[in-house]
Amino acid sequence: MSLGPGARGRTLLGRPPQPAINTADVAALLLRGRTLATPVLRAAVARLAPPMDTVAAYHFGWIDAEGHPAEGDGGKAVRPALALLSAEAAGAAAETGVPGAVAVELVHNFSLLHDDLMDGDEQRRHRDTVWKVHGPALAVLVGDALFALAGEILLEMGTSEAARAARRLTTATRKLIDGQAQDISYEHRERVTVEECLRMEGNKTGALLACATSIGAVLGGADDHLADSLESYGHHLGLAFQAVDDLLGIWGDPEATGKQTWSDLRQRKKSLPVVAALAAGGAASDRLAAILAVDAKSDRTEDFDETEFAERAALIEEAGGRTWTSEEAQRQHTAAIGALDRVDLDPHIREQLVALAEFIIRRNR
Amino acid sequence: MSLGPGARGRTLLGRPPQPAINTADVAALLLRGRTLATPVLRAAVARLAPPMDTVAAYHFGWIDAEGHPAEGDGGKAVRPALALLSAEAAGAAAETGVPGAVAVELVHNFSLLHDDLMDGDEQRRHRDTVWKVHGPALAVLVGDALFALAGEILLEMGTSEAARAARRLTTATRKLIDGQAQDISYEHRERVTVEECLRMEGNKTGALLACATSIGAVLGGADDHLADSLESYGHHLGLAFQAVDDLLGIWGDPEATGKQTWSDLRQRKKSLPVVAALAAGGAASDRLAAILAVDAKSDRTEDFDETEFAERAALIEEAGGRTWTSEEAQRQHTAAIGALDRVDLDPHIREQLVALAEFIIRRNR
Repeated sequence: MSLGPGARGRTLLGRPPQPAINTADVAALLLRGRTLATPVLRAAVARLAPPMDTVAAYHFGWIDAEGHPAEGDGGKAVRPALALLSAEAAGAAAETGVPGAVAVELVHNFSLLHDDLMDGDEQRRHRDTVWKVHGPALAVLVGDALFALAGEILLEMGTSEAARAARRLTTATRKLIDGQAQDISYEHRERVTVEECLRMEGNKTGALLACATSIGAVLGGADDHLADSLESYGHHLGLAFQAVDDLLGIWGDPEATGKQTWSDLRQRKKSLPVVAALAAGGAASDRLAAILAVDAKSDRTEDFDETEFAERAALIEEAGGRTWTSEEAQRQHTAAIGALDRVDLDPHIREQLVALAEFIIRRNR
Repeated sequence: MSLGPGARGRTLLGRPPQPAINTADVAALLLRGRTLATPVLRAAVARLAPPMDTVAAYHFGWIDAEGHPAEGDGGKAVRPALALLSAEAAGAAAETGVPGAVAVELVHNFSLLHDDLMDGDEQRRHRDTVWKVHGPALAVLVGDALFALAGEILLEMGTSEAARAARRLTTATRKLIDGQAQDISYEHRERVTVEECLRMEGNKTGALLACATSIGAVLGGADDHLADSLESYGHHLGLAFQAVDDLLGIWGDPEATGKQTWSDLRQRKKSLPVVAALAAGGAASDRLAAILAVDAKSDRTEDFDETEFAERAALIEEAGGRTWTSEEAQRQHTAAIGALDRVDLDPHIREQLVALAEFIIRRNR
C-alpha cells in the first residue's frame, strides 16, 4: 500500500509541499533509538526473577524458544526514536530521553503480551506468541512485570521531571487499557460508528505514541505547553499510524507486512476502512453490511477462499472505505504537523519530526 | 486455629507481656480504614471505561453477577487501616494516608484478579472469581486497569511525597510479582527449602503489607528512617500474617475461613508447615515425603476422602511443621514490634500498631 505523492498533494490542504522524505535520516533516527534504548531495556529486563527474565527475552526476540540467542525483529522502534527526538526538542541531549524510551517500550510490550493472550493471537513478528510458547500464566505475569518495571525505571530517578513523566505514562497506559476494553466490546457489536472507532484507536495507539513524543521533553525539563504540543503531534501521528495499519491490514503486501493476506478481514476486525464503508451508505455499503451480518452469525471465515475475502475488500473499496481511510491518514498527518507549528522548535529537530511523520504514513509494513 | 496465650508467653523471648488485645480498638481501626478508603476507591473505579467498571465493582463485592447492588465481604481491610495509622505515625492526619490506602488496595486487588486466573481458582470470598464470571480476557484487563489506576491516584497529586509513595508502591508491586513467579515455579519442584518459602512469602505477602505500613507516613512527609522502620514492621507483620494463613490453610475452621477443610493440602501448596515438616527429618518427615512424592505423580487428591487429608495433616504436625510455623509467626511478630522500637512514636499510635499485630497473629479467619 502506498498513499503516493499524488494523494499527498491532493489532501494536504493549503499547505506548501513538504520536502521529499529523507529515508537515510529516518533510518538513522530509528537506529539511534534502538541503539541507545536496547542496552538499558535489556538491563531492566535482567532484573526480573526467573523464569520471567527468560520469557521477556523471548518476547523481545533476544532468544528463541529454546533459549538460544537470536537476532529478533524488534519491531520498527518508532517510539524510542520519538522519545529521543522529544528530549532534543526541549533542548536536552538525546540521552536524556532514554529512560522515557525504555519505559514506553516496556508499557508497549506489556500491552502486546496481554493483548495477544486476550485476542488469542498465536503469531507476532513471525514467531509464536509468549502465551503459545510459555503458557497463559506467564504471559499475564511477565506483562505485569514489564508494566511495573516501566514505573520503576522512571520513579527510581527520584527527580520531579521523572515523576511528571511517570504521571503522563500512567495516564497513557490507562487510555491504552480503555482502548483495548473498547476493542473487545466492539467485537460483540453489529455496528460501530466511525467516531467510536477513532476514539478506540486514539486510546489504543494514539495515547502511547503521544506519550513517547512528549516523555523525552518532560525528562528534559520542558514546560507543559511544549510537552502538550508534542503530545498532540504524537496523538495525531498515532492516529495516522493506525489508519495506515488498517489499510495494510486489508490491502498490505504479505511479503512486506509479515501478516496473512486480508488479515484484518480474516479476524473480522471493525477497522476504519470497514466502519467507514458501512457508514457511507449506497449500494456497495448496503451489500457489504448484508454480507458482514451473515458472516457474524457463522464461524465460516476460517475456510473462506481468497475470492471471498477479495469480494469483501472490493466492496469496502467501492463504498469508499479505502479512500476515506487514506484521507484520514492525511488529515491526521496534517494535524500532527500543525501541532508542531504551535511551538518554537529548532528547525533541525522539526525537520526530523516531519520526516518521521512522512515515514509513518508512507510505510508499507 | 488459635496460638493461645500460653504459646505467646513461651516465645516472646525476654519481652514483657503485651497488654491484652483490645478487640474494640482493632475493630474501630479496621472500620475507619474501610470508611475513609472505600468512597475514594469507588470513585477511582468509576473512572474505568465500561465494562471494566462493572467487572471491578463485581470483584470488590459492590454488585452481584447480575449487576444488582450487593453488600460484599470486602476482606479484612488490614491494609487501609495500616496506611491511615502510618500517616498518623508521621504526625499527619489519618486522612493524609487515604490515597496511599486506596493505591495499595488497587494493587492488592490487581494481584488477586491475576493470581486467581493464573492459579485457576474459582472462588474468592465465597463468590465466583472474575475470570469465572466475566471470562479470562476481562480478568486480565481489569487487573491491568486497577494497577494503572493505583499509579494514577498517587501521581496525579503532583507532590514529591506522592512520587516517593508511588516509587515505594512500584517496588513493592515488582516484589509481589516476583513472589508469584516463585510460587508458580515452586509448584513444579519436588523440594522447596524453608528459606525459599520464606523469601517467596516475603515477596508475595510481606512487600505490599510493608508498603501499606509506610505509604501513609511517606505521604505525610516522613523521612526515610521512619518510613523504612515502618516498612520493616509491615514486612515482618506480613510474614507473620502469611504464617498464620498457612496454619489456617491446613487446620483452619471452614466455618470461619470460608475455605474448604485442608484447603492448602487439596491444592498441594508447598506452604510453610509442609516445607518445615519436610526439612525436619525423622520418621514422620520421611513418611510425609514418601506420601507427597506419590501424590505429586497422580491427580488423585481431587477424590481423596477426609481421612487421607487428616493423615497428611497429622504427619505434618508430628514432624513439627505446625509448631515451627506457629513459632515462626511469633518470631515475625516479635521482629515487627522490634522494628517499632527503632523509632520515636506517639505511644497511642504505637499501641494501635501493636494491637493490629496481635490481631493478625490471633485471628482465626
